[in-house]
Amino acid sequence: MKDLKEEILDSVRQDLAEIEEALVENLKPHIPFVSHVAKHVMFSGGKRLRPLLMVLSARLCGYQGDFDKRLSVVFEYLHAATLLHDDVVDGAEVRRGNPVAHSIWGTPGTILVGDFLLARSIAIAAETDRIAIINILSHTTAQMSEGEIHQLLHRGDLTLDEGEYLEVIRRKTACLIEASCQVGALLAGAPEEQVRALAQYGYNIGIAFQLMDDILDYTADAEILGKATGADLREGKLTLPLIYVLNRATQDDRTRMERAIGDQKFSKAQLDTILDLIARYGGIAYARKQAHVYIDQAKSHLDVFEASKPRSLLEDLADYVLSRKM
Amino acid sequence: MKDLKEEILDSVRQDLAEIEEALVENLKPHIPFVSHVAKHVMFSGGKRLRPLLMVLSARLCGYQGDFDKRLSVVFEYLHAATLLHDDVVDGAEVRRGNPVAHSIWGTPGTILVGDFLLARSIAIAAETDRIAIINILSHTTAQMSEGEIHQLLHRGDLTLDEGEYLEVIRRKTACLIEASCQVGALLAGAPEEQVRALAQYGYNIGIAFQLMDDILDYTADAEILGKATGADLREGKLTLPLIYVLNRATQDDRTRMERAIGDQKFSKAQLDTILDLIARYGGIAYARKQAHVYIDQAKSHLDVFEASKPRSLLEDLADYVLSRKM
Repeated sequence: MKDLKEEILDSVRQDLAEIEEALVENLKPHIPFVSHVAKHVMFSGGKRLRPLLMVLSARLCGYQGDFDKRLSVVFEYLHAATLLHDDVVDGAEVRRGNPVAHSIWGTPGTILVGDFLLARSIAIAAETDRIAIINILSHTTAQMSEGEIHQLLHRGDLTLDEGEYLEVIRRKTACLIEASCQVGALLAGAPEEQVRALAQYGYNIGIAFQLMDDILDYTADAEILGKATGADLREGKLTLPLIYVLNRATQDDRTRMERAIGDQKFSKAQLDTILDLIARYGGIAYARKQAHVYIDQAKSHLDVFEASKPRSLLEDLADYVLSRKM
Repeated sequence: MKDLKEEILDSVRQDLAEIEEALVENLKPHIPFVSHVAKHVMFSGGKRLRPLLMVLSARLCGYQGDFDKRLSVVFEYLHAATLLHDDVVDGAEVRRGNPVAHSIWGTPGTILVGDFLLARSIAIAAETDRIAIINILSHTTAQMSEGEIHQLLHRGDLTLDEGEYLEVIRRKTACLIEASCQVGALLAGAPEEQVRALAQYGYNIGIAFQLMDDILDYTADAEILGKATGADLREGKLTLPLIYVLNRATQDDRTRMERAIGDQKFSKAQLDTILDLIARYGGIAYARKQAHVYIDQAKSHLDVFEASKPRSLLEDLADYVLSRKM
């Protein structure tokens, strides 16, 4: 029996192929260097979740035109721009098993290619002649940068609570996924109710997606993940599994965790201490339960649409978010 | 007798005051950190040339609305965003006599505040509901980043010729000044001929402005300039005075210059050698003459407009570019 991932892939193979083509075609830099850096981050195993969601959202709203693939690259370019800048900001070394762009081409060039991708995204979106779309993209980009700034300023802050954490992941991840779905609906000229429903669908799977990402950072095999287990914590990022546990641990356990976290280059033994405590207090189970809640929410927002192939694909994609292994 | 600068300032005092107010009012970050960094770079003696040119261009085209000051901040925010990123890219240490933002708040935060300012600019511009304006801004931003990348890739490249140099300064400076004037005309709903004329005016004073900047880097007193003489060369940036001389010097003189330039941390004596040779071969005089040509061009493009107060102010501003001391 085929698994969910294979089933989804079978249904969107043609879309994904066209998205890949559009990603190359629409970059259009004057300087080859820009292509090298942009392609390094874009063609290294990305899932194209954002472009695909835009395309499927437009289709669900009855879009019949031929601008969807071209517009969809905007969401991958914006995503790539934030990856380039965030890896510099975080001092990351690897992403998806590859050295990060700034370790190959240097920080200056990486910053500037990120800027180029941001600008190129807006230029492509402007071709729709729809100010509403520009509005969404510019506000999303502003929110993403503020989300990253918030995370930066709270690096290693052990008092971060669940509410603040959710606000961070809303800005850094959910916003852009929400925008992808919303823009798809707008491109199709969908009525307000449908635009709102798809925005909500996107927001909810965006939160769930980041929750799963944060869980995988603790649970996934480093080889599959393409980076070391506990990488977030090493970068001083507290995520839900740990936030949950820190709030429930005994004073003794809390102190042990704080001591391990406080040590910037914590050892394998210290990481194991943290992982043990997260397991004991059920931090992963709690985060996973929350992800399920958001996915249920996401799917329920699709109820305003009649049953259709794109609707069931979007439902499958939501379920896939919960099952992904990397 | 008042000098040109005082005369211009008298005429635009009210405009400048309103622009200053709008710069603070429209920033609207959720995080105070963003304000601190943005204000550090924006309120440290900037001339507000770009917002002022937008406002005067709109007025020259008969604009009567009240959105001009608000829209004008877009050009200062974009300018500030590029200054923040460029100072990181160039590894600069001071700007206008102050430590650069990244030396105070770190590179990560500085990159992200630059991103926020880019996004905020587009969001404000979108309020005009005019896709043509978004188009100009997104293409300008893409060109600016590619201009910086070109400069970065040609750091210390002694074969840069005058044509390539002009292309670099077109992208890094003239583009945005051109956009300021063009958008002013568009905001006023000016006919195509006037939009084109103001774009050309902006492009030409933009080139002249950067030529003068590059001349001042060699000639101005370090104290007035707020950074060391020869700072461009230290960052590996060849500008017109030197490009002109390198192409005309005897093999001996060329070798002496190349040796001095090749030494990354060149001494006062080496800088003096370079300055002497630039003076002997007339590099400054040549660059200054070129700036005059561009300013004459700029003013001639205003001929499509009847005589008026804003027209003569724009002419005065063009002349001022040639006379500025910092």
